[in-house]
Amino acid sequence: MTTDDTTTGQHDSNTPADDNAASDDEDHFTVTPYDVSGTVDYDRLLERFGADRLTDEQVGRFPDHPMLRRRIYYAGRSVDRYLDAAEAGETHSIVTGVGPSGPMHLGHALVFYLAKELQDATGAEVLIPLSDDEKYYAKDLTYEEISEYRDENLRDLLAVGFDPEKTTIVVDTEDADVMYPVASALARHLTQSTVDATYGEPDNVGLSFYPAVQAAHLLLPQLVHGEHPTLVPVAVDQDPHVRVCRDVAAKERFPVSKPGALLGRFLPTLDGPGKMSASDDVPAIDLTDEPDDVRDVIREHAFTGGRASVAEHREHGGDPSVDVPFQYLRFFFERDDDELARIEESYREGELLSGELKELASDRIGEFLSAHQRRRAALGELDSELDPYRLTDAERERARQAVGLRG
Amino acid sequence: MTTDDTTTGQHDSNTPADDNAASDDEDHFTVTPYDVSGTVDYDRLLERFGADRLTDEQVGRFPDHPMLRRRIYYAGRSVDRYLDAAEAGETHSIVTGVGPSGPMHLGHALVFYLAKELQDATGAEVLIPLSDDEKYYAKDLTYEEISEYRDENLRDLLAVGFDPEKTTIVVDTEDADVMYPVASALARHLTQSTVDATYGEPDNVGLSFYPAVQAAHLLLPQLVHGEHPTLVPVAVDQDPHVRVCRDVAAKERFPVSKPGALLGRFLPTLDGPGKMSASDDVPAIDLTDEPDDVRDVIREHAFTGGRASVAEHREHGGDPSVDVPFQYLRFFFERDDDELARIEESYREGELLSGELKELASDRIGEFLSAHQRRRAALGELDSELDPYRLTDAERERARQAVGLRG
Repeated sequence: MTTDDTTTGQHDSNTPADDNAASDDEDHFTVTPYDVSGTVDYDRLLERFGADRLTDEQVGRFPDHPMLRRRIYYAGRSVDRYLDAAEAGETHSIVTGVGPSGPMHLGHALVFYLAKELQDATGAEVLIPLSDDEKYYAKDLTYEEISEYRDENLRDLLAVGFDPEKTTIVVDTEDADVMYPVASALARHLTQSTVDATYGEPDNVGLSFYPAVQAAHLLLPQLVHGEHPTLVPVAVDQDPHVRVCRDVAAKERFPVSKPGALLGRFLPTLDGPGKMSASDDVPAIDLTDEPDDVRDVIREHAFTGGRASVAEHREHGGDPSVDVPFQYLRFFFERDDDELARIEESYREGELLSGELKELASDRIGEFLSAHQRRRAALGELDSELDPYRLTDAERERARQAVGLRG
Repeated sequence: MTTDDTTTGQHDSNTPADDNAASDDEDHFTVTPYDVSGTVDYDRLLERFGADRLTDEQVGRFPDHPMLRRRIYYAGRSVDRYLDAAEAGETHSIVTGVGPSGPMHLGHALVFYLAKELQDATGAEVLIPLSDDEKYYAKDLTYEEISEYRDENLRDLLAVGFDPEKTTIVVDTEDADVMYPVASALARHLTQSTVDATYGEPDNVGLSFYPAVQAAHLLLPQLVHGEHPTLVPVAVDQDPHVRVCRDVAAKERFPVSKPGALLGRFLPTLDGPGKMSASDDVPAIDLTDEPDDVRDVIREHAFTGGRASVAEHREHGGDPSVDVPFQYLRFFFERDDDELARIEESYREGELLSGELKELASDRIGEFLSAHQRRRAALGELDSELDPYRLTDAERERARQAVGLRG
């Protein structure tokens, strides 16, 4: 278990009640890639960010997945172009990365497993950038420390089982021969004032530059494979990265179109919607945690929607909308909608107790972790496992040439 | 011939009269890496920048060179440490680079030829970075255009005749596998506000980041060869780059000491001290210009210290301190101090006419250019000529490891 201070995916979700309260006053919450606080109003966020709610028709065109059916991913940008290409069997890509500043946790895993399923269904190219540079800029970690996390994160990524023929993993400092030239080509049209306005004033010039590296991530599939629709599934707090990249893509002379986005809600932290981001006290569930330990942590820490006593719970029932074990099932771990509905109903009616719901969620999460960990343990030496996922020399050459440099 | 808008080395020199005027009011001139205007007071600059005037003893310890004897290079930082190492036969290095945004001109050549002579005399390691990224950030040029200049600049650099055993040439976007990771390692301790205060607010995030790349250049010899004294010969307007790097070097945990500096005066432009930087109208002398064309340009454009008529000149004499042909001889092209003194005296006395002095300077510059161009023409295919000067795999590994990354 680790405490989670990353910005990817693991924040508290809001409740329906919060929704209304927050939409009355938009200043009550903050969502930027480096700060999520207050009670997030997901509708208001779309207005603020200018993104579009997914339509039923769009969700119907995606490969069937509970995170889409249930609108965990609930909004997007340029989604139709992506779906058109996927349906037509034309090149389409997904970019989703991770910053190696700690073990990978459930919040990360959900996005990567979603990307793998989309790849399996429609043959999407998947690019996974590891932004070790960003973590170095943003955190008090040495590159030695970050390199340890890089190894562990890579093992988790490889355990997901992406198709090596259609998947590329880059590490910013290790693939800097491509990432820096491409980022530099984009940086000229990214003003410091845009970065200041989007992220707040950066502490150091690495953070000033990093949005150009992020833009390079999002455009790399097009620079390598030619112009095509790219979809970036991210927790909604990461949308500013996508917007900045879309602006840069529109300004530049390079052969790319704006990347699309698939915007998701935050996976609640174990201590529930009362706190808005993981604190030092609440462990996140890491992909390498023992299922038995996870069960203990859920028993001890998970915020529930249950009542103060069993008798009260039997009489009034629990509230699944704030119950973290239930939310985990809803986000990912109970894929059967009927079964999820039965659990929800049973909890609401007071038949299912909070303790029982915790056990149920622990079972499902444990099964997921065990399967993941089996695949992880079966991996060989990291460098050779990674090799099929690295950029080829020809791909490096094409990316450099696409921004005007010699191959 | 090209018009010169680079920041390296080719600006107007001041005159003794200007010296006094300017030192009365320090607001009358501006010297930053991106802006030189007003009449530069070289003494006042040292106070502003906090650098030290070279002592006679220091100049005596350098290998004998007219640019040092005549205090064209007139100040420095941490010069003694460099001299100690050079005298003791310990590792010492020189870093001097060029931004490939046009043909290389005389101003560039003087620094490179100085570095070569210092290398020949004491075995200094020389690192020559080509900052194609900076030129892309700062100018309206594509990477295709910059790559053309890169080729031409490299031919000029190779024609200087550096020892390939002791000389490394890097091109930022081509050696980004080393330059970006090293720059990123330094960037964390370089604040945006330091960059803003030193260079003015940057137009784009590339320029925000570039000072970290520049710091990477200045520290690279130490990261590759271990801690040792580095000397950076630059026109005095480039001193802020050195200062920023010295601050970063002092803050970081990496095995480096602060690089030293050797600070030079600006080579006057052909139109003389009346204008403070090269304008669009005044050609610079490029290293690839035909000596006969250079003679024509000097005849037509060179600002002289001569009188309005030959009769007046014979009677009152000329002023060598503002005469550009004389200053070119003094900077570099007449290496014999006695001969230079004879020319100066004869001009001051009115015996030597401005036209004759122009011919004299044209002869010397032409000889220099012819020899340079002969060596340039004798070069083979660029890639294979460059090969012995590139970082080896072992050197790349050492530099990455020195900042905490895997080799």
